[in-house]
Amino acid sequence: MEKLRKHIEEITAITDEDFEAVKPFFTIRKVLKHQYLIQQGDEAKYEYLILSGIFRVFYLDEDGKEHIVQFATENWWMSDYIAYFNQKKANMYVLCMEPGEVLSLTLEGREKLATILPQMEHFFRVKLTNGYMALQARIVSLLSSNPQQRYEEFAELYPDLIQKIPKKYIAEYLGVSRETLSRLYTAP
Amino acid sequence: MEKLRKHIEEITAITDEDFEAVKPFFTIRKVLKHQYLIQQGDEAKYEYLILSGIFRVFYLDEDGKEHIVQFATENWWMSDYIAYFNQKKANMYVLCMEPGEVLSLTLEGREKLATILPQMEHFFRVKLTNGYMALQARIVSLLSSNPQQRYEEFAELYPDLIQKIPKKYIAEYLGVSRETLSRLYTAP
Repeated sequence: MEKLRKHIEEITAITDEDFEAVKPFFTIRKVLKHQYLIQQGDEAKYEYLILSGIFRVFYLDEDGKEHIVQFATENWWMSDYIAYFNQKKANMYVLCMEPGEVLSLTLEGREKLATILPQMEHFFRVKLTNGYMALQARIVSLLSSNPQQRYEEFAELYPDLIQKIPKKYIAEYLGVSRETLSRLYTAP
Repeated sequence: MEKLRKHIEEITAITDEDFEAVKPFFTIRKVLKHQYLIQQGDEAKYEYLILSGIFRVFYLDEDGKEHIVQFATENWWMSDYIAYFNQKKANMYVLCMEPGEVLSLTLEGREKLATILPQMEHFFRVKLTNGYMALQARIVSLLSSNPQQRYEEFAELYPDLIQKIPKKYIAEYLGVSRETLSRLYTAP
């Protein structure tokens, strides 16, 4: 739970007493490689803060083709957010690529935390602001960039992920072929 | 300003006194057709709440091709958010398609509002949550849907925009050709 506290304190100060009130809302869970946290059709009951490990959130289209919505690693939050915020069944999958631990939080817990602790309302607003910008950047990239630009943007934004995630999935995320990606990897 | 109050009260209750404190943060501005609120290279000083009119937010790639990030009409918020939240120069254009009025808010004003009025922090968090879901839905749609699905999703989400915005721009937003879109329009 010390990681959670540090994560919150990157955004806002929190007293020992207030952090004691935060802790019960989170449940720690170990996740094994290849394990799903969410599958299509599940109730999307939780969002997850990653303490360790690597995950990917993806969507399967009608032809069974996978489309990666996000990767996520330490200190990132993830869920099928459309399903989670609307309390509907998931359309997405959240899959563990490298084993680790996550903290899970229900929507009810999230809303209650925001109500009882103003600094948590602030924390969630700041995290959403950052998330909103990241998604907008992804849309701009999908709409307009060529494969090389997309790769460069990704490498600049997420230098650690480039090292840790198989190229196959990075190519898929960027919407480029593996051949193109290999060429970019070896470019000076 | 009554529209602003109604808009806030869709999310959270606000007293007369608190609303009096909110009002000075907003400046009303009339916008003419074809007028730009933001152009690439500008300081993105404001975000805008639309009182009336129709706008589009777009990006020009290196070849001068336009990529539409969002349309916006009454009660929607818009800006070049990456530039606005980071207080950097804009990469995007915000253009008026149908004349109207907007309320503008600086980032400093937004942060101050959130600090002095807890219900405004809550308001912004809820609006960001909705915005986050809308962007995620757009990403999923860009990644995986065929033109017909994209059109149907758009028509379902924004039935009023379908009536008001020239087909040319809807086709551009959806990333489909105008011919494809015309076929979809006339489909039963």
